[in-house]
Amino acid sequence: MNNKIRTDLALEVRESFPEDDVEIKGVILTENYDEENDIRVSTVVIKDERGAKAMQKPIGTYITIEAPEIDKSSENNHKAVTEEIARQLRKLAGDLKGEEVLVVGLGNREVTPDALGPQVVDNLFVTRHLIKEYGTDFKEKHHLGNVSAISPGVMAQTGMETVEIIKGIIKETQPKLVIVIDALAARSIHRVNTTIQLTDTGISPGSGIGNNRKALNEESLGIKVIALGCPTVVDAATIVSDTLTSYMEHSGFDETDIDKFISEVREQQIDNMFVTPKNIDESIKRISDTVSEALNTCFAQAV
Amino acid sequence: MNNKIRTDLALEVRESFPEDDVEIKGVILTENYDEENDIRVSTVVIKDERGAKAMQKPIGTYITIEAPEIDKSSENNHKAVTEEIARQLRKLAGDLKGEEVLVVGLGNREVTPDALGPQVVDNLFVTRHLIKEYGTDFKEKHHLGNVSAISPGVMAQTGMETVEIIKGIIKETQPKLVIVIDALAARSIHRVNTTIQLTDTGISPGSGIGNNRKALNEESLGIKVIALGCPTVVDAATIVSDTLTSYMEHSGFDETDIDKFISEVREQQIDNMFVTPKNIDESIKRISDTVSEALNTCFAQAV
Amino acid sequence: MNNKIRTDLALEVRESFPEDDVEIKGVILTENYDEENDIRVSTVVIKDERGAKAMQKPIGTYITIEAPEIDKSSENNHKAVTEEIARQLRKLAGDLKGEEVLVVGLGNREVTPDALGPQVVDNLFVTRHLIKEYGTDFKEKHHLGNVSAISPGVMAQTGMETVEIIKGIIKETQPKLVIVIDALAARSIHRVNTTIQLTDTGISPGSGIGNNRKALNEESLGIKVIALGCPTVVDAATIVSDTLTSYMEHSGFDETDIDKFISEVREQQIDNMFVTPKNIDESIKRISDTVSEALNTCFAQAV
Amino acid sequence: MNNKIRTDLALEVRESFPEDDVEIKGVILTENYDEENDIRVSTVVIKDERGAKAMQKPIGTYITIEAPEIDKSSENNHKAVTEEIARQLRKLAGDLKGEEVLVVGLGNREVTPDALGPQVVDNLFVTRHLIKEYGTDFKEKHHLGNVSAISPGVMAQTGMETVEIIKGIIKETQPKLVIVIDALAARSIHRVNTTIQLTDTGISPGSGIGNNRKALNEESLGIKVIALGCPTVVDAATIVSDTLTSYMEHSGFDETDIDKFISEVREQQIDNMFVTPKNIDESIKRISDTVSEALNTCFAQAV
Repeated sequence: MNNKIRTDLALEVRESFPEDDVEIKGVILTENYDEENDIRVSTVVIKDERGAKAMQKPIGTYITIEAPEIDKSSENNHKAVTEEIARQLRKLAGDLKGEEVLVVGLGNREVTPDALGPQVVDNLFVTRHLIKEYGTDFKEKHHLGNVSAISPGVMAQTGMETVEIIKGIIKETQPKLVIVIDALAARSIHRVNTTIQLTDTGISPGSGIGNNRKALNEESLGIKVIALGCPTVVDAATIVSDTLTSYMEHSGFDETDIDKFISEVREQQIDNMFVTPKNIDESIKRISDTVSEALNTCFAQAV
Repeated sequence: MNNKIRTDLALEVRESFPEDDVEIKGVILTENYDEENDIRVSTVVIKDERGAKAMQKPIGTYITIEAPEIDKSSENNHKAVTEEIARQLRKLAGDLKGEEVLVVGLGNREVTPDALGPQVVDNLFVTRHLIKEYGTDFKEKHHLGNVSAISPGVMAQTGMETVEIIKGIIKETQPKLVIVIDALAARSIHRVNTTIQLTDTGISPGSGIGNNRKALNEESLGIKVIALGCPTVVDAATIVSDTLTSYMEHSGFDETDIDKFISEVREQQIDNMFVTPKNIDESIKRISDTVSEALNTCFAQAV
Repeated sequence: MNNKIRTDLALEVRESFPEDDVEIKGVILTENYDEENDIRVSTVVIKDERGAKAMQKPIGTYITIEAPEIDKSSENNHKAVTEEIARQLRKLAGDLKGEEVLVVGLGNREVTPDALGPQVVDNLFVTRHLIKEYGTDFKEKHHLGNVSAISPGVMAQTGMETVEIIKGIIKETQPKLVIVIDALAARSIHRVNTTIQLTDTGISPGSGIGNNRKALNEESLGIKVIALGCPTVVDAATIVSDTLTSYMEHSGFDETDIDKFISEVREQQIDNMFVTPKNIDESIKRISDTVSEALNTCFAQAV
Repeated sequence: MNNKIRTDLALEVRESFPEDDVEIKGVILTENYDEENDIRVSTVVIKDERGAKAMQKPIGTYITIEAPEIDKSSENNHKAVTEEIARQLRKLAGDLKGEEVLVVGLGNREVTPDALGPQVVDNLFVTRHLIKEYGTDFKEKHHLGNVSAISPGVMAQTGMETVEIIKGIIKETQPKLVIVIDALAARSIHRVNTTIQLTDTGISPGSGIGNNRKALNEESLGIKVIALGCPTVVDAATIVSDTLTSYMEHSGFDETDIDKFISEVREQQIDNMFVTPKNIDESIKRISDTVSEALNTCFAQAV
């Protein structure tokens, strides 16, 4: 049944396996819970091809930060979440030593739940041009990271694959690391706007809210790629089939009936629809503030 | 079962009754189909309290223009749709004779599917101030209608009920007619971004995508109120329960089981979620262009 | 020569008088300088009609906060400026005791230097609807002020005078105080984006960047009106005539020649033009963040 | 005196020469006036290095379309202007035969007068991805040009030179022609928002509203580059010095005095300021509509 799951979160794929299958071969899950700030950090490591096949995700590390309050106006744990994101990002990025980083804000700024990437880029402290102009002394005096950034837009706006645009820019500007920011699709509504996923595997086709674009990863771009995403939508077909599956399992239907229903749902018009909360504008604003603050902190300390 | 329906379209409420109940007492349905332009106009008239109770909508006229191509880039029938909207609007508004009209763009401009009202207002040809300054001769020479407009924002942004804001403005500026533009919720996905509803009953609580605000109608505002809306979302709970109900009915479940399931779905977190297409930005842009063009035409001819 | 000045800042009007005329009858100027944070607070009090005539501004108090770093990315004195604005605002507003405040964001959100008001409102913590719904206990428990807000748009967008819109809303919602936020025109370029003016006299016709609208003050609205503004532009005619006047005075021209030149400049097409810095988007973003933070602080403490 | 001029319009440079110097060596000026539609087309051809030095612009063709009504709401000559732009564009571009075109919208979408390029790109009919997916038959059936587009943002937002970004993208996507859309600076206020300049020389450093970026032209990008621009601002220093120069010449000052004054003006703070009309939002909206319509027409006919 796992191949019916539609989620960008490795953690949700892992959860879809039976509870007693705690040790899927080739996949390691570790968890940490900060009770004071209500922040849970789960790390899924896919070690080999066997794990990749089971998880249907590339080999690599997937860190999930769950912080239910991340999109709330209360500022109780805002600082704690920001610092946790920066800490996990440094873990994946290694010591940047002030080397050049290109941040790419994926998504369509005109569609609210897809605007996370562009809004994070809007709030970044971009410095590459300043360092080019004023030199290394200026950089060190002001503790600047070396940051460039772009929000290229989606294929319906540009007519180009994002990977074509980014590959071209990288060849010209020669950064050492790419960080890709994107809105993701979760399977469960309660993960929407409460979760950050970081991974060193980049972005694979069909991620985000379903646009068909080619991978952005170390293989395609030639340098290390870290993807930072937050689920802001659930696929409409997923929400319908999950709700009914849960009901049908509970009511004692057999698997054949359930599969038949699911395939019927999939044939309907909801294939290009997504589900998102009514106050998505406020959530996107708060989460993009938090993520950009985490990035700015991380780069400044990376000098 | 009708009380489980969540739709702003009178036509969908009418359709929810059994097919053989063609003549609900107190409700009259007439239809016209323009085959050349693929435009269907359905008029639901709720004549009396009996009809209002059956339909759970106020007494009045509800005109639905269905034009599947309204949000497409092809311009084939763009002019035909624009003229049809203007024609139906004049039917409801009567002869304006150049009298003052206030257009209100409801909704949140920061949430794409809710931005229809503000975007229509952005494209309106507003003239009231020009007529105040240059006089009646100027107005007649340039064939101007007398138009003012406002996009007040939603309650989460203003802290005020929309009816408080609009009532106050009407008292000061004394228009003869209010036209309220709003994004609606449909029950069926195929009505999203393909349908325009016009009604002389205004907007009732719980309309739009679910914000709890008081009615905007002749009773509350003291002058005639026409509402023009386009469904841009489906309530997430509605899509789940409708899909499953349809499956369960088809599979021979009895009504008690279905009701039990529906109430379970309602209790879940999807209560404040909506479903919308991925390319909602393009649809909203095209529909708001069409509606504002219809309004501008209608006002100019109303001199 | 004073009637040739085009500025919204009382401080600049005061400065336009000869230096030895330190004690204009009816006008009192006091100054305070916080050296550590480089914040200068000047208070101009116009006591009577004689002062009002000399200054060509209504009787009342005008507080100017000069903080050269307010639009810079450095956060050195961000907190100090925010607190100074909140402190001066409380001085003018008196003890709010949790009473209702309506904040009005004037200006056109589509024109960058005029978008200050709307952007401040976008960042406000609006609470009136929450208190209506959850009651006084909720308000006190969460230390909430009672805040409503609106950005009505400019007359070219609405066809209505702002005073008509706000007067109507006030009658319906009955706030105790109105705070109007607006982008202003300064005379000197070095005051642009570095200065905040607070006044208990509201907004007078011809303020802002020159839209002809009627006054928003206690007389027109019936309740106390505080205006908080920041100069973001200089009138183009002012910059030309000031630059030349300065040169001509310096070069020994007599006043007749200068007056003749000024009137020629005024006749040219630059009458509806303004001057603004190239990075105005960044400045507006930072200043609106600072002002909204000051307002949010002030309201929260006003409970 | 020519080196004091600050304008992106070749026509204005040409006009700055004495009237009797009708035949500057190496520069040819031809004019056409369409009286019915009030559209004037002037073509400046810089033939050789001598002309380039005199004009301080690269060798090439500069076509200026002056249409005073282009930013007005009246639609009188809207179609005529659109067709004129398309006609002149085809003259410079040659027969595209359906080959790939990349449109680049320069400028900062957050600063109203600088948002022309991004807004034109927003309205373009982008097709490259459709042709990649559905093939040549689809392209020919629907009479599609092959169009991709990007609005990269300005250096303060990206940290990168625009030329780096575009050069990289071109290497990956291999278009045959680049069309660069940009907001320009004029010398005379009456050219602002009334003029379109097309040139086959691309964009040179210091164009637009003064950002220091490297050239976008055939030499730097390796393929043909057409720049289409519209002046939306006047440099603040230019407006001051031009107004005063005109007055001083008129009043019989000698050139030394004038030069001294100009250099004093240049030293002041107005160096990073621009002048723009108050209703710049409406003008930008109308001009970007017109330009994008001209481009869409041109590409569709280029199949």
